[in-house]
Amino acid sequence: MSVITIERKVLEKNDEIASQNRSLLKSHGIFTINIVSSPGAGKTSLLERTLEELGSTLQIGVIEGDVSTDIDAQRVARLNAPVVQIITNGGCHLEAKLVQDALAKLNLQQTRMLIIENVGNLVCPSTFDLGEAFKLVVASVPEGHDKPYKYTSMFMSADVIVLNKKDLMPYIDFDRDSFYKGVRAVNQKAPVFEISCRTGEGVQDFICWVRKRVQARA
Amino acid sequence: MSVITIERKVLEKNDEIASQNRSLLKSHGIFTINIVSSPGAGKTSLLERTLEELGSTLQIGVIEGDVSTDIDAQRVARLNAPVVQIITNGGCHLEAKLVQDALAKLNLQQTRMLIIENVGNLVCPSTFDLGEAFKLVVASVPEGHDKPYKYTSMFMSADVIVLNKKDLMPYIDFDRDSFYKGVRAVNQKAPVFEISCRTGEGVQDFICWVRKRVQARA
Repeated sequence: MSVITIERKVLEKNDEIASQNRSLLKSHGIFTINIVSSPGAGKTSLLERTLEELGSTLQIGVIEGDVSTDIDAQRVARLNAPVVQIITNGGCHLEAKLVQDALAKLNLQQTRMLIIENVGNLVCPSTFDLGEAFKLVVASVPEGHDKPYKYTSMFMSADVIVLNKKDLMPYIDFDRDSFYKGVRAVNQKAPVFEISCRTGEGVQDFICWVRKRVQARA
Repeated sequence: MSVITIERKVLEKNDEIASQNRSLLKSHGIFTINIVSSPGAGKTSLLERTLEELGSTLQIGVIEGDVSTDIDAQRVARLNAPVVQIITNGGCHLEAKLVQDALAKLNLQQTRMLIIENVGNLVCPSTFDLGEAFKLVVASVPEGHDKPYKYTSMFMSADVIVLNKKDLMPYIDFDRDSFYKGVRAVNQKAPVFEISCRTGEGVQDFICWVRKRVQARA
């Protein structure tokens, strides 16, 4: 048995459990987002903004994936959201089984929305379905406009894209046209929200989009 | 045979070939750096700066690792350096075997320094030795000061650290003390260079460090 065969089996098994997660979440009417990005692009900041804006009217559960620390889970817990921490101990992405185990620790009856924050990695999480309704890719301005060309699999798999750290645009040589051209070369459908989690610019448009999706799911 | 056993065997095999690469490079007196970072932290910019500063007096070979494009290799080729491109087709890190194959395409007799640009990923490349003399981790200010706490394996494995995009410090809530505390918690030895590849600030100190290492190797 070769490594490639095992890898395919791992992916098949993952997809099977992801389907179970998806059915479970759907049966509870829970809208689920899987947030992926490079390290430091702003996944946790986006999560915080979303909890601040919607957390008081909507029960939002959070699953935090990290390689080796619970710093982000602590940040999120401060906003009074139920958080389950997954530490991968060096693993470079979340898997459906880890999420399945985490779901058992959340009160799904009371949950309307679930946000899964994946490990910071623009390569590996693209092939592992977790059972989410939407995969959200956070790109950030200082990473540069060439990311969609280099990490095609990730941008291809995105259902929605957030371009964060818009406030840094004046200080960086970021070619917006080139960024969009790269995105659209591999993904014609995903809406793109330009925001700054730091200043709040553009956040409301994104929140409005999320609110509509949650309502459609109810 | 379990997946974990296979993974260990893959790593053992990789280390074996990395040792062969190291011997080969040492026998030619070539100083080799393996550059790793998150996507968009500035690996290619640092490479360009190094080629601009040292390329006219020193024969520098480059191995470019990318998931799916040769954009970076094209950037480097413009500076008249011999470049070998490795496209991993979705693979999240370089391996010693890929580097071994690339070395066969370079004129090692004439090479004094080799720079390997790894795939943009702060997780997977940390466990794959390529045969380099130094592993260089590029962190960047907009990624945030918490990266050493979250991606400990990478910062632990660093022989030298570059903190890039220093020019963005005034526009970002970057806690320098926290960054250094995180680095020193896992790595007491690696020198840290604060630079901006964009403005050139701090670049000379880094270049001076590189020059000394190359001379020591000759």
